[in-house]
Amino acid sequence: MNDNYKEFTLTRTIFFISDGTGITAETLGRSLLSQFDMLSFEYQTIPYVNTKAKVKQTIACIEQAYKNDGERPIIFATLINKNISQLLQKSSALFMDFFQQFINPLENELGHKSTHMVGLSHGVKNYTDYMKRINAVNYALAYDDGANTTNYDKADIILVGVSRCGKTPTCLYLALQFGIYAANYPLTTDDMTSTKLPACLANYRKKLFGLSIDANRLQIIRHERRPNSVYASLKTCKDELKYAENLFHDEKIPYLETTTRSIEEIAAEIMILTHIKRRLSI
Amino acid sequence: MNDNYKEFTLTRTIFFISDGTGITAETLGRSLLSQFDMLSFEYQTIPYVNTKAKVKQTIACIEQAYKNDGERPIIFATLINKNISQLLQKSSALFMDFFQQFINPLENELGHKSTHMVGLSHGVKNYTDYMKRINAVNYALAYDDGANTTNYDKADIILVGVSRCGKTPTCLYLALQFGIYAANYPLTTDDMTSTKLPACLANYRKKLFGLSIDANRLQIIRHERRPNSVYASLKTCKDELKYAENLFHDEKIPYLETTTRSIEEIAAEIMILTHIKRRLSI
Repeated sequence: MNDNYKEFTLTRTIFFISDGTGITAETLGRSLLSQFDMLSFEYQTIPYVNTKAKVKQTIACIEQAYKNDGERPIIFATLINKNISQLLQKSSALFMDFFQQFINPLENELGHKSTHMVGLSHGVKNYTDYMKRINAVNYALAYDDGANTTNYDKADIILVGVSRCGKTPTCLYLALQFGIYAANYPLTTDDMTSTKLPACLANYRKKLFGLSIDANRLQIIRHERRPNSVYASLKTCKDELKYAENLFHDEKIPYLETTTRSIEEIAAEIMILTHIKRRLSI
Repeated sequence: MNDNYKEFTLTRTIFFISDGTGITAETLGRSLLSQFDMLSFEYQTIPYVNTKAKVKQTIACIEQAYKNDGERPIIFATLINKNISQLLQKSSALFMDFFQQFINPLENELGHKSTHMVGLSHGVKNYTDYMKRINAVNYALAYDDGANTTNYDKADIILVGVSRCGKTPTCLYLALQFGIYAANYPLTTDDMTSTKLPACLANYRKKLFGLSIDANRLQIIRHERRPNSVYASLKTCKDELKYAENLFHDEKIPYLETTTRSIEEIAAEIMILTHIKRRLSI
């Protein structure tokens, strides 16, 4: 029914336009539009709009979308260049430029003119930061899924949980986003013969953070990996999760339920709960 | 000198405040502040400010920072809840709320009230999307660094380049950000005995995308990994990069220089140049 309804709903085309990568325009624009989830949108990102010729092309795309949709498009822009911003304002679309709206009040407050340099926000400003990030990714890979359990000295955090509860993507996200050294250790049936903390983790108690998940959700995820296996059965999932949560309680390991959370949310909550400092300066 | 200078510079404390994760506030706020890179800032992210008690705590932090710095803090906020936004406006800080500023014009344009629901933007709205993302991360890990070269049928893209030119973090970023299936294949000295495309790549010509990097930068990166090795010598770096770039030219593989680009920028440029569609709906 919902699908039928959508067929008769007008679609709006949303443009994310930037003279940089467009990542910021996309992030903020999508956040705002998530508040209108009853409506249907088509998305188009146009990055590196930094010449008059590209503005012209872009405006042609916008007007075409207007024609097709019968409703004017909406532009979310992050344009450092004022001239480009002014040219784009002339299209028929609703135009919202995040940078132009906030740069002026910031200039007044800070008593400095902005550098009006495109690409500063996501560029390799800082070689040290670049290396920190790469090293954090390498660390997450080397210490993924218990691949390396002999020495967690360098770890900022060690995520612990049963197979497929979200450990790996969370570690990679923590590495890429914050430059954090995140290892992860999977609780396996071998560990479950004892109610004690696995020996390799005992010295790193303060770095441990647990992840748990709803058993039914886990079953679906595991079923995708190994259909109809014992591994994916609801009983196995329930048993393993019960063991894991008991361990978290007994050993006083803080932990988080991941079922209704996205990777970004899991990472953000871990940062709050553990007070780990991000290693990246930007 | 620069450091001495900074000692006498007043520092501003920047608060990223949200009733959600704060990721959007942080992204946009940092983008804006990158335009004032002559100034020195301290950052503090306060997510999940969703009760009056938390607003009170937050305002106390803000006023303390004002006292310490001698300059009023700046708040970048993404607050869905209007009441929370209004309460926070009463602090001494410069207050900029990205959501409140843009939600009204959007409501007028779209003819709908926003849902005013916190956490929609980064939440697990869509189970299919969640699985797509996880599967893409798993794919990137399974096909990282030539770990699996027998079958690239599922790949959306195969990044090709010499060791340490940025392939792995780019693949992981493409997976996490866009749900794209990104494999990567390292060009090794074994491949360099021939000027032809490695056999395992020959059937996937259209999926190939090259990465290159400045030889001096590569030398520094490799030196961190294996100090004073032949692998890290400038000569090896130059030879390998020359071989790789010749291959890209001869085989008409599009490629990108990564030296001055961040992972976000490399990923954004690849998306434009290859016209790959993101697999995630949000």
